[in-house]
This record gives sequence, structure tokens and C-alpha cells, in this order.
Amino acid sequence: MARSFGGIDLGGTKIQAVIVDDDHKPLGSARRPTPTEGGPADVASEMEHALRDAAKAADIEPSKLGGVGVGSPGVIAEGNVTSARNLPGWEGSFPLAKKLEAALGCPVALGNDVQVATDAEFSLGAGRLYDSLLGVFWGTGVGGGLILDRRPWTGRGGAGEIGHVVVEMDGARCTCGRRGCMEAYAGRGAMEIYARKLHKDKGRKTDLFKLMKEHERTRLTSGIWARALEKHDKLATEILDRAVKALGAGIASVVNVLDVEGVVIGGGLGVRLGHPFAKRIAEEMQPHLFDDAHPPHVHVAALGDLGGAIGASLLLDPDSPAS
Amino acid sequence: MARSFGGIDLGGTKIQAVIVDDDHKPLGSARRPTPTEGGPADVASEMEHALRDAAKAADIEPSKLGGVGVGSPGVIAEGNVTSARNLPGWEGSFPLAKKLEAALGCPVALGNDVQVATDAEFSLGAGRLYDSLLGVFWGTGVGGGLILDRRPWTGRGGAGEIGHVVVEMDGARCTCGRRGCMEAYAGRGAMEIYARKLHKDKGRKTDLFKLMKEHERTRLTSGIWARALEKHDKLATEILDRAVKALGAGIASVVNVLDVEGVVIGGGLGVRLGHPFAKRIAEEMQPHLFDDAHPPHVHVAALGDLGGAIGASLLLDPDSPAS
Repeated sequence: MARSFGGIDLGGTKIQAVIVDDDHKPLGSARRPTPTEGGPADVASEMEHALRDAAKAADIEPSKLGGVGVGSPGVIAEGNVTSARNLPGWEGSFPLAKKLEAALGCPVALGNDVQVATDAEFSLGAGRLYDSLLGVFWGTGVGGGLILDRRPWTGRGGAGEIGHVVVEMDGARCTCGRRGCMEAYAGRGAMEIYARKLHKDKGRKTDLFKLMKEHERTRLTSGIWARALEKHDKLATEILDRAVKALGAGIASVVNVLDVEGVVIGGGLGVRLGHPFAKRIAEEMQPHLFDDAHPPHVHVAALGDLGGAIGASLLLDPDSPAS
Repeated sequence: MARSFGGIDLGGTKIQAVIVDDDHKPLGSARRPTPTEGGPADVASEMEHALRDAAKAADIEPSKLGGVGVGSPGVIAEGNVTSARNLPGWEGSFPLAKKLEAALGCPVALGNDVQVATDAEFSLGAGRLYDSLLGVFWGTGVGGGLILDRRPWTGRGGAGEIGHVVVEMDGARCTCGRRGCMEAYAGRGAMEIYARKLHKDKGRKTDLFKLMKEHERTRLTSGIWARALEKHDKLATEILDRAVKALGAGIASVVNVLDVEGVVIGGGLGVRLGHPFAKRIAEEMQPHLFDDAHPPHVHVAALGDLGGAIGASLLLDPDSPAS
């Protein structure tokens, strides 16, 4: 009998759940905001409910699933998630797999959020033609995932931190506290801090914060940035140009060292800004590529917003590189 | 019967040849300057003679060797070396393996110079305790080699260009023509250009060029830099501080993405300046490491100047990662 699987992408802003058939086709999905207060147990409860919503849409009982995979931030080991800094009260360790197994009545596997999204693009998405792939997830932060010789590369467990590649010694302060990281220029979190500073402290004009209020947001979401660009907001354009330039330098650095065949640009901003920006990032990489006659192929993530959750569902698939 | 092997490290300055026993122990070695004029055939002739010198020292006929491995710059494919830019008249392609096989009467295998040196440190040197290793060869340029999961990673053939990781957007001009590469700050070639500029154009005082003449050199060799440091030459100290800072940022960037267990610092400057500088590079990496609680181990190349040639000899060893 064909089995179905669940996948949950646990993000700092939202929890995305999906149910897929054994051909990885989505049967139902659901999304809930990530709790901003409380602790790991509250987050786990929202994850359970998001998965139950998706299962309902797919008309299946969670306990009948072949299993549920979770893509999570933080450090993942033996079913525990530790120091997931973007999540409320999650400085310590929490037995997420055990708790979700008890709540859902099926096996649960955990993986790194960015790596499972990369695995999904490699297996099913924009990277499926390549044997080596760099996934760049451009959102609040900038995360990276690697496929080398058709297998995920995670190092000692901490690989993929492309957001913290140094593009400028003694450069801009990053939200991680360090200086000159790519994410200090390109992360949506850092971009918002920079926009506020230029607007409030330096008196630069922008409609970014007006758009944010009009759309009842509390943060500059990817949609707000996209709308500001459409309206030719000068400050938004400038900050995004700066971000794209940093992405070009940082990604080119990694390509110079690894010489991967393909690069996939995903994440909230990557997917929202889409192909024109993937093309601009490739253009900004070009002057820094050592072997500039053979640039890697650069694509937008083909699985879009669902990629992380579909990638998580692959954790249960014995044929997947991630399992 | 135990067999012996030959190894040749083809550098821009010198040709280093070695004969090793089947336990990789050197039996004899020889060194010749790399021709600065002529073309690939002249270089190949000097390589043959360097190998013959080493074989004589080891008391063995070249034709009796199990084979000779060559670590070469440039692009290597099917026994040909193409666009080896540091070598005279070598812009095109040259059938180096075939020519050396005919001259020496034994099989010849070609590999990338930096990768075979990394393989040697992984198999026999400072990296032998690790499953993943980054080799950084700090000399005229800065080259990199990778071992991931006990196997060399060469990408599509162009991996390892750590010298061209961007550490400063719009930064110093690199000898490759690009801007802000790590090598633009840390390569001995770029360091010499910078020293000349500060000395001649800006009137900065230094004994670097006096030392160069006293030791009858035409370039600022690693030995000249080391002597200037011993004499507390202020400009030399400043330029090396700048180089070490760039190496720290660039190597940390790669570690953030790959999370390797070990880093080996080799090359002319790396070996000459030794442990105190490897320690300083590790210190300059620290503020840029995302997982700063788990820095990789940083070592000086244990095989020293012979590492490249010994690594080349491993190309013929069926048990080596490089073969």
C-alpha cells in the first residue's frame, strides 16, 4: 500500500506543514505563525496543530502516516533541538522528536532546516540535474546547504553557515554580533535594522515603514520589500542592491573553493524576488569567480515556500540523500 | 619486491623531485630552478633532470620506478597541462605525461599541485588524524586543497581556489586582476607589490629590498620576509599582520561553510614562518567563526617543503586518496 508522509518546516516566523504521497506530491498543506512567546513546548504544540491541519486537508489521520520529518533551526542531535535562537525560550535542549511522536502517533525524524530544503531542491527541484549543489536560503538570515557528489555535506554538524562568510573585514555589524558577514548586508533582519537607522537617524525618505503599517505587519517582510521595489522606493532599492552585491561576493567565494555545478536561491526573499534577482546575484558573482568562463548554474528554488516542508518529509524516504 | 616511486612538485620558482619507498619514506631528493624562459618542453626537460638527480641520490634507475607522479599548476586533464600561467610560455596545452613517460621510461600520472600536497598531509602529515581537511598553501599565491569524508574534493576540476575568496568587497587589487581576494593581501606576490609601492611611492622605510640584494635574490622570498621580521622591520611586520588578518577571515569563511576538522597551513611562507604564524592565523579566524566554541585544529604542514613532491608520488599508490 502506498504510504503518505508529513513534513514540517519550523521557521522563526511561520510553521509550514505538508502531507505528501510516496511520490513526494503535496496532498495538503497548512501554515501557522510561530509563537513569539512561551517556550519549546508551545512551539511543539503549534507544530502538532499545523500538521493536523495539513493532514485534515489531505484527508488522512496523522497516526496513519509513514512518519513526519521536521526541518528545524538550532543544533540537532538524537531527537533533541538545542539553542534554536530564533525561537522563543529555546536556549536549552528540548526532546522535540519524542514529544511530536507522542502527540501524533507516528515516527518523527529531525533534520537541519536549511539542509533538508537543499536536499529537496536536489531531489525534486531546481537542483535535480546536478551532482553538486549549493543551496542559499535568503530570508531573515542567510543559510546554506550543500550537496557534494550527490550526498549532503554537513561537516561536524555545523556546516552551511554561508551567511557568516566574511565579505568585508571590519565591515557592517551582523545580527550574530560579528563583523562583515554576508548576512550583515543581505539578511532581512540586518536589512531592516539598516533601513530603520537610515530612515530614523539619518532622515532618509522611504515608504518601507508606511507599507509595513498599511499591510498590518510588524516587520519588513519579503512582501513589503517587494512592494517597495515595485514603487521604486529609493532607499529600498539601495539596500537591496547592497544585499545582492554581498550575496554575489559571498556565493562566488564558496564557488571558488567548491566548484559546484549548481546554486539554488531560496528562502523568503529569494523566492519572493524570484528569477530577476537570481540573475542579478549571478551577475554580481561573475567578477569574483576565479574560473569565470565556467560559472555554476544559478536557479530560483523550484519548490518555493513549500520546499522546506517537502524536504523535511524526505527525511523518512529511504531513497533520499537526506535520510 | 618492494617498489619505489618518484614525485615531482612543479612550482613557479622551483622543481622539487623526490624518490620514495613503498612506505612513502624519501630515499633521495633534488631541486632545480624552474626555467623562466622558453616553453613547456624546456620545463619538461628540467623536470626530467631533477627526477634523474633524485634517482641518482636514491641509487635507482628511473625506468625501474613503479611510476612518477607530478603535481602541476594549471588545468590538468588526460595527461595534458593547460594554461599554467606561472610557467614560461605555457598558455596553451602540453602533453606533459606522455613526454615524461618517453623520457623516463616509466608511467607518469599528473595531479593538481595543491591537491596532491593536501593529500600528502592527509595521508602522511599533519592531517592524518582527520576525516575532513582544508589545506592552505601560502606562497606566491594562496592555494587550497580539500579532503571531505577521506576523499579529495575537486568539484568540476576547479575547486580549491581559496586565494580568491573575497575578504573585502572593492578591496585591494589581486594579481589575478580581481578585487578584494584573500590573495591580494596574503599572497607573497601581492605582498611584494604592496611593499614596493609603500617603499618607493610613499617613502616608507624598510630593509626588505636591502636584504633581498644582500642575499642575491631578485624577489622577496619567504626567507627574506622571515629575516625582515627577525630584524623587527616595521613595514614587513605591518604587511604580514595584514596578510594574517586576511588569511584568518578567508579561512574562517570556508570553515563556516564546510566545518572541516582540520586546517593545514603549508606553502613557502606557511612552512618558513611555521607554528607561531599558524597560531596567529587561528587567532585571526576565531572572531569570524560562527561556531566559535568548536574551531578546527590548525597545524603547520608536517611534510614541509617536500610535501608537494611526496604528495605527487602518492598519485601512483593505489591505497592513496589521490590515486
